[in-house]
Amino acid sequence: MSAAAPAITPEDRQAALEARLRQVGVLRYHDKHPFHRLLHSGGCTIDQVRAWVVNRYYYQSRIPMKDAAFMSRVEEPGLRRAWRARLEDHDGSDSQPGGISRWLRLAEGVGLDPAYVASCEGVLPATRFAVDAYVRYVREQPLLQAVAASLTELFAPAIHEERIAGLLRHYAFANPDTISYFQHRLKEAPKDVAFGLAWVLDQAKTREQEDMAVAALEFKTDVLWAQLDALYGAYVAPGLIPPGAWRPDQGLMR
Amino acid sequence: MSAAAPAITPEDRQAALEARLRQVGVLRYHDKHPFHRLLHSGGCTIDQVRAWVVNRYYYQSRIPMKDAAFMSRVEEPGLRRAWRARLEDHDGSDSQPGGISRWLRLAEGVGLDPAYVASCEGVLPATRFAVDAYVRYVREQPLLQAVAASLTELFAPAIHEERIAGLLRHYAFANPDTISYFQHRLKEAPKDVAFGLAWVLDQAKTREQEDMAVAALEFKTDVLWAQLDALYGAYVAPGLIPPGAWRPDQGLMR
Repeated sequence: MSAAAPAITPEDRQAALEARLRQVGVLRYHDKHPFHRLLHSGGCTIDQVRAWVVNRYYYQSRIPMKDAAFMSRVEEPGLRRAWRARLEDHDGSDSQPGGISRWLRLAEGVGLDPAYVASCEGVLPATRFAVDAYVRYVREQPLLQAVAASLTELFAPAIHEERIAGLLRHYAFANPDTISYFQHRLKEAPKDVAFGLAWVLDQAKTREQEDMAVAALEFKTDVLWAQLDALYGAYVAPGLIPPGAWRPDQGLMR
Repeated sequence: MSAAAPAITPEDRQAALEARLRQVGVLRYHDKHPFHRLLHSGGCTIDQVRAWVVNRYYYQSRIPMKDAAFMSRVEEPGLRRAWRARLEDHDGSDSQPGGISRWLRLAEGVGLDPAYVASCEGVLPATRFAVDAYVRYVREQPLLQAVAASLTELFAPAIHEERIAGLLRHYAFANPDTISYFQHRLKEAPKDVAFGLAWVLDQAKTREQEDMAVAALEFKTDVLWAQLDALYGAYVAPGLIPPGAWRPDQGLMR
C-alpha cells in the first residue's frame, strides 16, 4: 500500500503559481534585452534615446485605454474601484500631472517637441502592432488573463531603479525633473501589482486557469520584447529604419 | 476673367488614384527589404530560409481568415461571390491542394516538419502582432479600406517572378514541386487584384475616400515590412532570437 500523498493546501497552490509567474520574468522580461543594457550603461546616442522616447510614448499612451477596456468588462464595482487609480496615475487630475505628461517632460528633456511625440506620427509600425495587440488582448480575453498580463509590473521596480541610476550617471539630459516618470512608477507599480497578483492567485483555481495566467504573462513579455527588438533593429543594428518611421532629424524642439 | 478649369472626368480621378496607389508600392513594398534581396540572390543560409518559411506560414494561414472576415461583412452577394475564389485558392478543395498545402510542401523541401510549421509554435511574436493587426483591420475598418489593403497584390507578380528565378538558381531545395506555391500565385494574384483595384477605383469617390484607400495600402505595406524586419533582426542581423521563437535545431524532419 502506498502512503497517502500529503494534502496540497490552497496556500501551496498559490505559492506554486506565484513562483511560476515570477519565473516568466526571470526568463523573458525585457530587462534582459540588449537595448536596455545599452541604455542603462550609457551606450546610447542621443538619437537612440530619442527613438526610445518616441516609441515608448505609444505604449504609455495606450495603457490607460487598456485599463479602461478592462474596466468596461468588469461587473464588480469593487474591482473597478481598485483598478481606477491606474487611470489617474497615467492621465493625471486637475491638480496633478500623470505619467503621460511626465513622459512628455522626458521628451522635452531629450530635445524632442512634445507635440510631435504626442502625435505618435513617427512610431514604428511594429511598436503599434505589439501595443495594439495588448490592448485588444485585454479587451477580448478572459479577465483572469487580462489581469495576469499586467503582472509584468512585478518585475518593473528593479528595472526602474537600474534605469534611474543609469540615466543620471551617464546622460546630460537626466535630472529629477526629466526622469520623474520613473520615480513615480517606483511608488505606483508595487501597489497595483500587489492587488493584481493577489487577485490572480485567488481566481486561478484549476490547473487550466493557472496555465492561462502564465500564458498571459508570457504574451505580455512578448509585447514588451517585440518593442525593443523593433527599436534595436531600426536604430541600433542593423539600423534599418522602416518607411515612414521617425528619423533623427524629425520632431526636434525649435 | 480666368479661364474655366478643365473638367475632371471620373476616368481622370480613377487614373490619378491608381497612380497614387502604385506609388505606395514604389516607395514601401517589401521587395525593397534587404531580407528579400538576400533571399533572392542566394545569400540566405538554409536556416534563414527555414525561419522565413516558418514565419511566412503564419501570414499564409491567416489570409483565408482575413478573407472570411471580409466576406462576413459584405451584404452584396455579387461581391462575396467574387471574393470567394480566394478562399479556394488558399484552402484548396477536395480535388485540388491550395496555397497553404503548397506552402507546407515548401516547408518539407527545406527540411522542416510540416506539422511543426502548421502548429505555428515557433512564429516570432512580432510576426503574429503584425499579421493579426491585418486580420483585425479587415474585420473592423470600412470595406473600402479592407479591399484597398489587399492591393499589395498589385506588386506581387514582379516579386514572385524574381523569387522563382532566384530560388531555382541558388538553392538546392528549389524545384517545380517545392516552389509551386509561387507559380500558382502568379496566376491567382492578377485576377484577384484586377477585381479589387476596379472595385476600389469605383468606390472611392471623394478625396477623403481616396486618402483612406491610400492609407489602407500603406498600412498593409507596414504589415509586410514589419514581418521582414522581425525576421532579419532575429535571424540575420543582429541575430537576436526572442524568447520562445524558432531556433535552428527545432522542427526539422526526422
